[in-house]
Amino acid sequence: MDKLIPAIAQDWKTREVLMLAYMNGEALQKTRETGRAHYWSRSRGKLWLKGESSGHYQEVMEIRIDCDQDAILLLVKQEGGACHTGYRSCFYRTIDGQIVGDKVFEPEDVY
Amino acid sequence: MDKLIPAIAQDWKTREVLMLAYMNGEALQKTRETGRAHYWSRSRGKLWLKGESSGHYQEVMEIRIDCDQDAILLLVKQEGGACHTGYRSCFYRTIDGQIVGDKVFEPEDVY
Repeated sequence: MDKLIPAIAQDWKTREVLMLAYMNGEALQKTRETGRAHYWSRSRGKLWLKGESSGHYQEVMEIRIDCDQDAILLLVKQEGGACHTGYRSCFYRTIDGQIVGDKVFEPEDVY
Repeated sequence: MDKLIPAIAQDWKTREVLMLAYMNGEALQKTRETGRAHYWSRSRGKLWLKGESSGHYQEVMEIRIDCDQDAILLLVKQEGGACHTGYRSCFYRTIDGQIVGDKVFEPEDVY
């Protein structure tokens, strides 16, 4: 598994979809080894431990794979919020710009 | 929006993640116009109305976009099952191969 595949992080209790990021084989291996979600950052071109700068780690409770084996679903316990904007989920807006998510921290307090 | 971006379909009531597919601008426009999820099929290289062959349409209740505007979340009412294998969700297996999803139809009855 060298190519990048999309990985959805979902809150394992509330079932809220928190974010979508990408994994390569190394990210998946590190996630399984450590129990904390790791992704491949396309913008920075490097492995990324979610929470490494914010402390908002994702404890991985279960890893699922889809029928075609080209997408991953992580069921996680999310520390703080998943989104760097301070919302619990990165999907905090409708496509028309209405805010529907919950803000759970102030980014300037965290980064 | 000409590039493909990943779109997650989630059951709007149970919050089960059903599938991940891809959208381009045309797929998103058709989805908004018709209220039924349309995707871009990468394997067939064409626009795809989810359910066109199975009858398992997705009625779109809400469309969300993520912080970076490069992923979409559809909250849908799913007719039948989302997965061509007969499971409600394409994420019916753990990464270790354990079946955790519900089978809701027999593919040979549908396709």
